[in-house]
Amino acid sequence: MIPSTQSLSIIRFSASKSLQLDDVLSVEEPLEISIRYGLNLEVKNLSVTMRTPGHDEELALGFLLSEGIITNYEQVVGTVQEDANRISVVLHEDTPFDPTKFERHIYTTSSCGICAKSSIEAVRVESTLTEIYQDWVVTAPTLYRLPWLLRERQADFSSTGGLHAAALFTQKGDFLYLREDVGRHNALDKIIGHALKTDSYPLRTQILLLSGRASFELIQKAALSGISFVAAVGAPSTLAVQLAQEMNIALVGFLKKDRFNVYSGVERVE
Amino acid sequence: MIPSTQSLSIIRFSASKSLQLDDVLSVEEPLEISIRYGLNLEVKNLSVTMRTPGHDEELALGFLLSEGIITNYEQVVGTVQEDANRISVVLHEDTPFDPTKFERHIYTTSSCGICAKSSIEAVRVESTLTEIYQDWVVTAPTLYRLPWLLRERQADFSSTGGLHAAALFTQKGDFLYLREDVGRHNALDKIIGHALKTDSYPLRTQILLLSGRASFELIQKAALSGISFVAAVGAPSTLAVQLAQEMNIALVGFLKKDRFNVYSGVERVE
Repeated sequence: MIPSTQSLSIIRFSASKSLQLDDVLSVEEPLEISIRYGLNLEVKNLSVTMRTPGHDEELALGFLLSEGIITNYEQVVGTVQEDANRISVVLHEDTPFDPTKFERHIYTTSSCGICAKSSIEAVRVESTLTEIYQDWVVTAPTLYRLPWLLRERQADFSSTGGLHAAALFTQKGDFLYLREDVGRHNALDKIIGHALKTDSYPLRTQILLLSGRASFELIQKAALSGISFVAAVGAPSTLAVQLAQEMNIALVGFLKKDRFNVYSGVERVE
Repeated sequence: MIPSTQSLSIIRFSASKSLQLDDVLSVEEPLEISIRYGLNLEVKNLSVTMRTPGHDEELALGFLLSEGIITNYEQVVGTVQEDANRISVVLHEDTPFDPTKFERHIYTTSSCGICAKSSIEAVRVESTLTEIYQDWVVTAPTLYRLPWLLRERQADFSSTGGLHAAALFTQKGDFLYLREDVGRHNALDKIIGHALKTDSYPLRTQILLLSGRASFELIQKAALSGISFVAAVGAPSTLAVQLAQEMNIALVGFLKKDRFNVYSGVERVE
């Protein structure tokens, strides 16, 4: 297995001095995700993503869910690690998969064209979860604590400074698990894949914490896995906010130890 | 034209208080990039990317160059803004384009499989620039100044906190131009597209500054546009460093006002 960090000899300049030392870097390597489907287990390559090695199975499962290829873990027979950078997910023979549908990109499923509205509409169509809205609330002091709890557990980030993290917490702010990756979408796919494997999907009762910014893609993945409360350490984009509002997802941004902004679902914050 | 920022009424929690105020967000919207090619100007949709509106033509041109579809601006007749979120680049009728080649992903052009080595090899094959290596050097004091010069000019970031930036500087550290986007790869594509349009491509004599981390994809784009000196405010990944070393690109990371690390090409730093 490829490690998730790697040591490298570098030169550090500081003021007018320079010295040679060892630095720890986040590993980035390609992962090819394929599925085998149908009676004859035909192979379809879905994606090559640049990721940090580790939790590849979770990454592949979460990716399939985010892409709308599977909607639950029962549709999966298992995964095959073909080699260090190639993984296949074997679908049950009765799991429907239409390769031509996958060619059409999610944003083009709406007939109204390419726009914010159609992007949001596509997520709504793709989602098989009938209702994301939840009425449980989170207190402000609970939210203030989350970034610290994340940082405390972000082992690889501390050494490399080069990883995005996604983490799940209970409503009370108890830490559940986190995943790290050079790609923020990968970190979230790993979280979702873990939930699928451990039968905790959909993630209706957990808070999702993102170590960086909240983009449309991340809220899309949250929506497709039932997540109803998202907190981000960084800024959200307009489309992330619009999607959160449309899907009834509470969205908190710029979360610091003593402040945050609420962009969607303020009735869920106490 | 869609603006690049948008104001939104939000609730800010701070300690035990909450107040309503207006917050400025980075706009994120899909952009569909297509080409029209050949004698009959056939249309091929290449990508839908989530981007911050503005400089769409540069983004499309830079994307085409990064994907190896064009290698210079002479291959382009012009661009057509089909609507707010769709742009087409019209290729000269004698610009070679093979739609089937585009289906094959860049990382799979090597026969050795999916690995770090093949990812780097693919960039080498894709690049039409015979030599990236340059022997001009940059002084440490010049580098220390760059993040401040960037921040000073990053208008939208200051208001939203939600944008990645890429900027070009001369060898002496004089600011040339910058582009901002919710996607870091888009910011760099816009930089490259601008260079193509203004006849300053390839970018052999400029320093590229990245506001965040340096991933493989960003160094790949740099390599394909001749950039030989990259400085990042954040951390590089292992594969970014390997590619920089292989392509003779100087790579500086964790650039602060009084320190930085050199990951590749230390002989270019003085």
